[in-house]
Amino acid sequence: LPRSIDVGARGDSEAIPLFSIASERAALEHQRLLTKPPGSLGRLEEIAAWYAGAHGRFPPPRPDRSLIAIFAADHGVVIEGVSAYPSSLTAAMVGNVMAGGAAISCMARRLAVEIALVDVGVSGDLSAVPGQPIVPLVRAKVRAGTANLRREAAMTREQALSAMAVGAEAAERAVRAGHELLAIGEIGIGNTTAAAALICALTGAPPASVIGAGSGIPEPVRARKIRVVEGALLLHAPDPQDPLGMAAALGGLEISAMSGFLLAAARARKPIVLDGFVTSAAALLARAFDPSVARYCLTSHLSAERGAAIAIEALGSRALLDLDLRLGEGTGAILALDLVRTAVDAQLSMATFATAGIVGRSGTS
Amino acid sequence: LPRSIDVGARGDSEAIPLFSIASERAALEHQRLLTKPPGSLGRLEEIAAWYAGAHGRFPPPRPDRSLIAIFAADHGVVIEGVSAYPSSLTAAMVGNVMAGGAAISCMARRLAVEIALVDVGVSGDLSAVPGQPIVPLVRAKVRAGTANLRREAAMTREQALSAMAVGAEAAERAVRAGHELLAIGEIGIGNTTAAAALICALTGAPPASVIGAGSGIPEPVRARKIRVVEGALLLHAPDPQDPLGMAAALGGLEISAMSGFLLAAARARKPIVLDGFVTSAAALLARAFDPSVARYCLTSHLSAERGAAIAIEALGSRALLDLDLRLGEGTGAILALDLVRTAVDAQLSMATFATAGIVGRSGTS
Repeated sequence: LPRSIDVGARGDSEAIPLFSIASERAALEHQRLLTKPPGSLGRLEEIAAWYAGAHGRFPPPRPDRSLIAIFAADHGVVIEGVSAYPSSLTAAMVGNVMAGGAAISCMARRLAVEIALVDVGVSGDLSAVPGQPIVPLVRAKVRAGTANLRREAAMTREQALSAMAVGAEAAERAVRAGHELLAIGEIGIGNTTAAAALICALTGAPPASVIGAGSGIPEPVRARKIRVVEGALLLHAPDPQDPLGMAAALGGLEISAMSGFLLAAARARKPIVLDGFVTSAAALLARAFDPSVARYCLTSHLSAERGAAIAIEALGSRALLDLDLRLGEGTGAILALDLVRTAVDAQLSMATFATAGIVGRSGTS
Repeated sequence: LPRSIDVGARGDSEAIPLFSIASERAALEHQRLLTKPPGSLGRLEEIAAWYAGAHGRFPPPRPDRSLIAIFAADHGVVIEGVSAYPSSLTAAMVGNVMAGGAAISCMARRLAVEIALVDVGVSGDLSAVPGQPIVPLVRAKVRAGTANLRREAAMTREQALSAMAVGAEAAERAVRAGHELLAIGEIGIGNTTAAAALICALTGAPPASVIGAGSGIPEPVRARKIRVVEGALLLHAPDPQDPLGMAAALGGLEISAMSGFLLAAARARKPIVLDGFVTSAAALLARAFDPSVARYCLTSHLSAERGAAIAIEALGSRALLDLDLRLGEGTGAILALDLVRTAVDAQLSMATFATAGIVGRSGTS
């Protein structure tokens, strides 16, 4: 292996600590003291308690500083004609994030969330990006795009491991910088194909039930995309006991990087908000390395992509938002991240019945 | 009538302007130029376009300043044993908002939304509130709580009209202060009973399908609440052609005030975000005065209260969030209001394909 870095593979010395059910329960107990009917904040109470459980203490640290890590890479499978857009758009979208013009740029600015933008495998030309970018690019390219997963392994096992290390390092930087709540997003033309292949391999779901319109493909292209994934699954015969082999065979570089990010963040007890379909694939992959990672992840939204619900169910999760988003970039994750911050802030800042001097329920109930 | 104020009743000279479909369409057209696949921001694109349609121009003014108006009042029907909490809690909750300790207080602070807190009919003692409140109280009490709607009219027609005027004045103050996006919320022990009665009267739905657990009542109390509403509907035989009579018979003061707020805000072309079950009743009531108001209202969330979906469907609306909230205070509205601001900001701030120098779709689609 080119780099001997801990990416959370089974048997590693540094395991993910167990999610703290005791801290989650302490949060729920505290919520019963707050000036509101018990349970009346619904899922906000759940996610505030989840946040405490991930941190392993109550009260948890305030999530004042939050970061979304966006991993960008290209996909050789685009040559099969599975995407509505050309690979060159990946580099253009990265430049757009750097320049502050992307949807995620606007949202991050408005919601005061820091962006970490990582090139883990963009194949296109990144030289045209601005000299003084609003968001700097972390240059950690493992290779310039994957190979075509329909014909050969998307990358080598060593490259998949390196991509995971890139993600893990991004998480560790975020943790060192004091971010208490993290999120992930991705940019990569063609990555819904790799994500669909991984989700099929990891859940056993048939490609036709997982593959949808992606970023906006007509039905004949969708039919081709299904055949491509079916062919890839036959070619590689992925082994669920070998997650690294799966990541290498099916790609993509940003998906492996996100898996590494999730595993490293969970090792540091940081709660992480997932985005949509592609990030769900990364979470399923991370879980194949270490099942403990799952409880540290929150599913932000039910993507409009067809297989999103299958992936979320396989994660044992439940989407917080349902806004018909299918953009990626972390746009769903950042909205949910801000809801988590609001929920945690209410949990920590609301008056209790005692401090407000209010007598609670009457005898009628 | 005690006060000759325009509250939007049919035949008034100052009508609500028609919602601008042209401005809504201009927003949607502009969104197609932004650096993302068309439609990929899903409901965020819809609500940004709605915001422009309400304002009647594109680009619309930025919603930098936003306000949530919270109307508080008490309900004589509490004497029937329909609530989990005593009426005295209404005043305590108002004090809690003034002191900054309520859920809505924390959310408004975190999301930078101004609160206008209006006493339109609290019956309890408000003297214990802090001398230097974080949120001042607008003292506009029309009467100290309604009468018991099960036995008599909740208030007189004149009082209902006065309550509507209190709401209209709050909207006019907010508009004068430069708020471009508004929301409503309420505080009032017992108000789910009045809201349920109004929703039944306005939609024809049977009480058993509308009445749920409220702020947390057990099944026997729910059964009593259903009987109370059934009895009230028999007693008053509300006439759908006489919305003011309905408002007077069934209450409450805060519901009438919110109706007046919605009508006045719509007259000023300001988009308004509704909260949950009780605010839906106010919107249905406002629509009975002037159907044009409906398009200016956004349903923020699907309340956990049973009849919420019935009210939303009757409004021809669709909830943006589904977070199992059932607190009131405007807690759902403020979360959706912030989503609207994020959506509008993205719409106005994102790069276009032209400005970003990006070539769009390839020939594959």
